[in-house]
Amino acid sequence: MAQKYTTRQEDYSKWYNELVYRADLAEHSDVRGCMVIKPYGYAIWEKMRDILDAKFKETGHSNAYFPLFIPKSYLSKEASHVDGFAKECAVVTHYRLKNAEDGSGVVVDPTAKLEEELIVRPTSETIIWNSYKNWIQSYRDLPILINQWANVVRWEMRTRLFLRTAEFLWQEGHTAHATREEAIQEAELMLDVYADFAENYMAMPVLKGRKTESERFAGADDTLCIEAMMQDGKALQAGTSHFLGQNFAKAFEVKYADKEGKLEYVWATSWGVSTRLMGALIMTHSDDEGLVLPPALAPIQVVAVPIYRSEEELNAISEKIESLGAKLKQLGISFKYDKDDNKRPGWKFAEYEAKGVPVRLAMGPRDLENGKVEVARRDNKTKEVVDFESVDVYISSLLKEIQQNLLQKAADFRASKMRSVNSYDEFKSSIDEGGFFLAHWDGTKETESKIKEETQATIRCILLGQPDESGTCMVTGKPSSRRVVFAKAY
Amino acid sequence: MAQKYTTRQEDYSKWYNELVYRADLAEHSDVRGCMVIKPYGYAIWEKMRDILDAKFKETGHSNAYFPLFIPKSYLSKEASHVDGFAKECAVVTHYRLKNAEDGSGVVVDPTAKLEEELIVRPTSETIIWNSYKNWIQSYRDLPILINQWANVVRWEMRTRLFLRTAEFLWQEGHTAHATREEAIQEAELMLDVYADFAENYMAMPVLKGRKTESERFAGADDTLCIEAMMQDGKALQAGTSHFLGQNFAKAFEVKYADKEGKLEYVWATSWGVSTRLMGALIMTHSDDEGLVLPPALAPIQVVAVPIYRSEEELNAISEKIESLGAKLKQLGISFKYDKDDNKRPGWKFAEYEAKGVPVRLAMGPRDLENGKVEVARRDNKTKEVVDFESVDVYISSLLKEIQQNLLQKAADFRASKMRSVNSYDEFKSSIDEGGFFLAHWDGTKETESKIKEETQATIRCILLGQPDESGTCMVTGKPSSRRVVFAKAY
Repeated sequence: MAQKYTTRQEDYSKWYNELVYRADLAEHSDVRGCMVIKPYGYAIWEKMRDILDAKFKETGHSNAYFPLFIPKSYLSKEASHVDGFAKECAVVTHYRLKNAEDGSGVVVDPTAKLEEELIVRPTSETIIWNSYKNWIQSYRDLPILINQWANVVRWEMRTRLFLRTAEFLWQEGHTAHATREEAIQEAELMLDVYADFAENYMAMPVLKGRKTESERFAGADDTLCIEAMMQDGKALQAGTSHFLGQNFAKAFEVKYADKEGKLEYVWATSWGVSTRLMGALIMTHSDDEGLVLPPALAPIQVVAVPIYRSEEELNAISEKIESLGAKLKQLGISFKYDKDDNKRPGWKFAEYEAKGVPVRLAMGPRDLENGKVEVARRDNKTKEVVDFESVDVYISSLLKEIQQNLLQKAADFRASKMRSVNSYDEFKSSIDEGGFFLAHWDGTKETESKIKEETQATIRCILLGQPDESGTCMVTGKPSSRRVVFAKAY
Repeated sequence: MAQKYTTRQEDYSKWYNELVYRADLAEHSDVRGCMVIKPYGYAIWEKMRDILDAKFKETGHSNAYFPLFIPKSYLSKEASHVDGFAKECAVVTHYRLKNAEDGSGVVVDPTAKLEEELIVRPTSETIIWNSYKNWIQSYRDLPILINQWANVVRWEMRTRLFLRTAEFLWQEGHTAHATREEAIQEAELMLDVYADFAENYMAMPVLKGRKTESERFAGADDTLCIEAMMQDGKALQAGTSHFLGQNFAKAFEVKYADKEGKLEYVWATSWGVSTRLMGALIMTHSDDEGLVLPPALAPIQVVAVPIYRSEEELNAISEKIESLGAKLKQLGISFKYDKDDNKRPGWKFAEYEAKGVPVRLAMGPRDLENGKVEVARRDNKTKEVVDFESVDVYISSLLKEIQQNLLQKAADFRASKMRSVNSYDEFKSSIDEGGFFLAHWDGTKETESKIKEETQATIRCILLGQPDESGTCMVTGKPSSRRVVFAKAY
């Protein structure tokens, strides 16, 4: 009966794919590179979305919605943007099908060819700045603080569920400001919002940093990012916040009149996180038995399973558990009582373990008699027998403890995977062990790309707020004023 | 200073378009037929979405997400579906662009042609049933109760903001059931959810009915609908719920094993409402001064404007109003205090009137002195001077009253626009006055299409729960067992 699953040790990548299916989060569709996000996976994404959305609104942003399609010519308007995004994308060329003459189905109607092809948005800077052009005349129209929740498409050749898919869901913030300083502050603020979300809800510690020029977003003057460490020692970029300078304002001719009536180009930011966060969440906490979810993002925080031989026993247990369920709901705790008679308790235990439910309760006739209930933690797999009368309070504080424990565990793991290296030999011989490597770099693209070619490691970021430390580049020996963070990455 | 806007009387259609811009709800984008939903319009849509989403969850549904793209061949699998949807749609034929050789921008890379074209979903039955095929083996896997919030594209030639756009936002429920009866119940349940939402949140009374065969959804055995009456006497279909029989199960070979192990085709429903509801909301309540919003869907329910000459006066008024704001927020009332010094009170009054804010407060130095505040209603444009001390309670009950009044007003209007006609001459001579016409029809497609050709009126629905009434068809004189509802429609 028990299916054998791949362990992390055996094959991390296979473990991940199996886990996504086993926990019923998502699956591949028949459309190349596109996934189906299943209800349980989507429920987690909804929690992420709602928490982030509330944070965006608290920081003054509103949601809006811009078209799915971008006229092909828009992509060319910002010179570096086109290089980054105009390559692998879905192109709409026709707007009608017709019945095949041989009755075999439908074919594209050649007479319904678009004059200008439309691109399915890979990101929306161009279409949005084309609108902002009409919205901004004076400094009084600024700032514009807008976010969009949307689907985007990038025609990736090699895809993995959540981590890299042709279509994915995300949010993209697009803001317009009167001054350079205000735009930079906005980009920094949103990076903080992402980092706070990652740490306090996903229980995933992140490094906050700045991308090197070659890793920047196409069209940005500066790209800030949060970087997380996965259990296999690979880094994962979990969110980015870009200071776009005046690049898109210039590309779309967006100027505002300042208080003196002088026309100035507008300053911009954009920032986004995507369903990729689902992959990060899975890989940060899960184990060989399945998904492990932090309580703050668990669609079901507590599940209860009755253990009984007779219907009479079941009824007595159900009465107790249902009253507890009502109490937990009042405490804002999401609760499921699984008394499905078709499945055995052992099967249910394994199922909720695979789905990462943080707390599992079990109650049998003896527990009932003694006024007890068994409380099992998903995170560290310990069990306790607790007085039924006070178990609601116990669970409430336990969920906080689990949330805290997961963050601590992930932080300890990351600390164990972070090291300073001083020579390129040491770097090359240890990079395959995984982790973040702090090393001196001479600041040139040439050295960066040499390291990437020779080791597949990239500069994940230059840490923000890190004190200067003078040293010499591990590759060229040239002077360096600070260490940067290298890793192999998703 | 005051711009002259078109009145409903002068030109209803122009009034509508101007209103959408004036209230800052949406605008046309440069992409043909696609709109930009602006923050204020999107905030109303978000309220609709959140309320509906909670209702879907209360009735046992979960959200999920399926691919944007549908392989062309899928559309042909269900015979009548392909006729309805495979015609006007956006077709993706290529997946890459490249730099033009003449440096003029980017062009489609002819080597990156898809083997099978992808259609941007006009609706998702086919891609979803292709997944359900793998999800359903036994009766234990049923029912599947899934909803999706998504964007869809139908290449409409004549578009109008919210009412008919090439891309629109919607939700589409897709359910799978073991029995015909259960699927029919589901379709009826969701129609009730829509009708309840329309009446109790949108304050828009609706007729619940069944479409004739020729007006059915392509692929459905039965289409239920809610129909609303707009102020210009035209009907608007506000939501549909389809009993799909076993049509998609047969097209995608989806069978389940019943308790005896016998294989049976699965029964299906689908149901949806879209951003078209925004158009319905606008046209049900608004007047020549702008938008009128029912409090249940208003992003700002109460706005306060200070009237002052000195900063000292402003400060004294602000102190009062801000304390009131805190009280209102505790009552769950959304409140905005507009003390922007750049704009005059009269300008603000007109602005919030145009935006349909249900209640506007104004406070000047004399009000302050007398412990009073002026409360103006948007719905019937009356004003009252109210004791400041108890105004929070007053507003709380006023919002309920406004909600109720809008529904009553719309219901009275609809009643005035509903008539029985007994002869085709009477029908033809009065159909241009607008409204719902209850008339006898012989039940044939021929008569239905003759009426449509000669009058542009369609059968909006056959009312549910209507008692039989025998009569004779107004056109052919053939026997009829009940009246059906005709109207010209959006």
